[in-house]
Amino acid sequence: MTDTPSALSPVLEQADRTLDAAVDRLFAFLRIPSISTQPEHAADCARAAKWLHDELDSLGFDARICETAGHPILIAHDRTPPEGPHVLFYGHYDVQPVDPLELWNSGPFEPVMDTAEDGTQRIVARGASDDKGQVMTFIEAIRAIRATQGTMPVRISLLIEGEEECGGPNLVPFMEAHREELRADVGLICDTAMLPGVPAITTALRGMVGEEVHLRCARRDLHSGVYGNAARNPAELLCQILSSIRDPETGRVTLPGFYAGVQAPPQALRERWREIAPDDATFLGEVGLSVPAGEKGYTAIEQTWCRPSFEINGISSGYTGEGFKTVLPGEAVAKVSFRLVAGQDPVRIRQAFCSHVRSMLPEDCTVTFAQAGGSPACTVPEQAFGLQPALAALGDEWGTPAVTIGCGGSIPVAGDMQRILGMSALLVGFALDDDRAHSPNEKYELTSFHKGIRSWVRILHAMATPDA
Amino acid sequence: MTDTPSALSPVLEQADRTLDAAVDRLFAFLRIPSISTQPEHAADCARAAKWLHDELDSLGFDARICETAGHPILIAHDRTPPEGPHVLFYGHYDVQPVDPLELWNSGPFEPVMDTAEDGTQRIVARGASDDKGQVMTFIEAIRAIRATQGTMPVRISLLIEGEEECGGPNLVPFMEAHREELRADVGLICDTAMLPGVPAITTALRGMVGEEVHLRCARRDLHSGVYGNAARNPAELLCQILSSIRDPETGRVTLPGFYAGVQAPPQALRERWREIAPDDATFLGEVGLSVPAGEKGYTAIEQTWCRPSFEINGISSGYTGEGFKTVLPGEAVAKVSFRLVAGQDPVRIRQAFCSHVRSMLPEDCTVTFAQAGGSPACTVPEQAFGLQPALAALGDEWGTPAVTIGCGGSIPVAGDMQRILGMSALLVGFALDDDRAHSPNEKYELTSFHKGIRSWVRILHAMATPDA
Repeated sequence: MTDTPSALSPVLEQADRTLDAAVDRLFAFLRIPSISTQPEHAADCARAAKWLHDELDSLGFDARICETAGHPILIAHDRTPPEGPHVLFYGHYDVQPVDPLELWNSGPFEPVMDTAEDGTQRIVARGASDDKGQVMTFIEAIRAIRATQGTMPVRISLLIEGEEECGGPNLVPFMEAHREELRADVGLICDTAMLPGVPAITTALRGMVGEEVHLRCARRDLHSGVYGNAARNPAELLCQILSSIRDPETGRVTLPGFYAGVQAPPQALRERWREIAPDDATFLGEVGLSVPAGEKGYTAIEQTWCRPSFEINGISSGYTGEGFKTVLPGEAVAKVSFRLVAGQDPVRIRQAFCSHVRSMLPEDCTVTFAQAGGSPACTVPEQAFGLQPALAALGDEWGTPAVTIGCGGSIPVAGDMQRILGMSALLVGFALDDDRAHSPNEKYELTSFHKGIRSWVRILHAMATPDA
Repeated sequence: MTDTPSALSPVLEQADRTLDAAVDRLFAFLRIPSISTQPEHAADCARAAKWLHDELDSLGFDARICETAGHPILIAHDRTPPEGPHVLFYGHYDVQPVDPLELWNSGPFEPVMDTAEDGTQRIVARGASDDKGQVMTFIEAIRAIRATQGTMPVRISLLIEGEEECGGPNLVPFMEAHREELRADVGLICDTAMLPGVPAITTALRGMVGEEVHLRCARRDLHSGVYGNAARNPAELLCQILSSIRDPETGRVTLPGFYAGVQAPPQALRERWREIAPDDATFLGEVGLSVPAGEKGYTAIEQTWCRPSFEINGISSGYTGEGFKTVLPGEAVAKVSFRLVAGQDPVRIRQAFCSHVRSMLPEDCTVTFAQAGGSPACTVPEQAFGLQPALAALGDEWGTPAVTIGCGGSIPVAGDMQRILGMSALLVGFALDDDRAHSPNEKYELTSFHKGIRSWVRILHAMATPDA
């Protein structure tokens, strides 16, 4: 940690002094029910894009709304430093649906400042954490800089989309069509979490291979009394195949070559993670579990941040309704996925899986596959533009060293920036794992919002001299 | 085989001479759409019962329709021999639904006499084989006896129900309430098949234990990216458990004590079965399979007639709809069943299964079970009243020795007769496995009908001197 440079102090003080007004603006943004997956909220999505446009316009940015086949995308640029480092900020203005409404303690689009039993103040509303609150940390940082310094420390562009929560297909072609306009030195994605009290940048995002497996045995459903045992049961065959994918002793995936190229994270990082991340009992305890599953020798957090995984996402065969039917099914279906880490090739993993399934198939049974997703892991190298200054800036703000972490889920836009724009993306977020994103009573802690604004002020200044 | 006794000849000739009229009567019965499971056909079910009542009444039987909470039950008694052996005939007048209607070549309730390519004549209609045609073999035998001899050779009662195809709960309490009236020396159930050209009496009916298994791991569905591998996947656990129930080498069920008390059928019977029953290639080929599954060392027919089985009837977990969801399910459900043979106790088998499931459960997961059916196997001893004379009578009619066979499915009324009425039941049927019972274009061969009538004439006479 370093002392706060004197140039920063007025900016940070401005952010502190105007926090109430910043909260009011966030509340206004939160009142727009921009649920992207529900067609009846299409106008609200457009309204949220317009609201952002007007904010950035008022801050002197060259903002414009770009129509797509779905919800609009907002782009904005600042021109105050004519040259120097250039960052592209990414966020999204759309939110998840609010069902089940009856579990909310206040209206999902009537934001309130709630005080927890321990005195923590939280902004409660749909989108408070995912992602409107996080987007506004960045815009409020810009506002504080503009008010005090006038000129931005680096060139800044923003790309804020409205289809993150509905898996809309429009962002990638948009990025491809606006490649030159969007290219920068580094992406800054604000859609992830930190650890309680410990700031983090996510530098490892897992890839994924998904497959749907259809096994067919008899050409129709049979009577289990007449054919049972003698005719192959595809549900049993599927169970045999799926339970052979993991070694019961080691918990490791058994597919040949699955771990080829996979490297364990540095021991120092693993030790740091053990200090700051929840231990197995805590992590699993939150969902009612206590016995770690999966790969032996790795904590639950390590398994999800940096190890590849195998999961059955769905399985179905035979009669699954009320009551009982003594059917011997003709078909069985499973949806499975592998999360991939650096070094794993999605094409080879998919081939290894399909070959294994075929190798266990009696010759009178057939299998068909349906691919669902195939993307490699996305990692940010330690030398990526701005990574080290950003970590330092975060450490300064939060008073404790920032850590690089992994993320078990997928955030496709990070890979898209690498692939389409040729730059790394730093995933910097201030959400907490207990923010209830996608659930009733979503919240964003006032500290996340306030120190998030301050963090961006520091990061943007640090980016100005990325090698300092 | 013995020469036909001279007393029988006029009866059999009468049956031959009046066959066309018997077919006409069967057609009239088949025109009543007595689909028991569809409430809109309730009046048709009552009409079918009334039709049978009138037939038996006209044959001098004391027939009456007994109302139940569901469809009525028909009871009829003949009093012509005041004493001597007493048989209780069982059949059902209700039929299966007819969907999919578009696959029928003629109206399901517009019976036709169809001629196959090889010249075989078949009665085509819903219920032709299951069970109206079979019921009418018995009633036409009575008619032929009445017309020629006047007096029945044995005391005869009939119990014809209307809820066999809908699993109605009313038969058992009815039998319990009419125990004294229904008790006889032996039951005669006409609802099974013979082998092509070879008459058969089914003397081994398998029992069944059904269980629904609910596994619960995390208290809610999880994001597979965030929790995958580290949190136990109940679908994978269920696959592990279910694939451990059968030894992959021997195909035998692994539950401790599962085969205790189970005896292989006599070698001579096995050899006879191999002569008369379809071989594995034929049996499996009909449903598109070629590789026998299940217990090594037994043919497919042996496995279903006399060996216990394990089957997965349904399995479900996670997302099973269109597309893909990277969910890590919180729960997984399976419906499984064991078919039991003589010597197996359903209570102990159920306990062994539940204990095995529990033994594989990590301590943070829970299982709940829901029982679905539990009945022991039902076997007819060689010394059962009338079995040997009935076999001999069948052999005389068909010109080849009759065989005792097993039945993989369950016919609960046979066990009910044993349990409630204290008598064995002989399952004598003339259907063929390719009769398409429950399917479109159900048929009953004219030979089954004609020789079925003649078979009952012989059997009823043979019953008069069961020890002869």
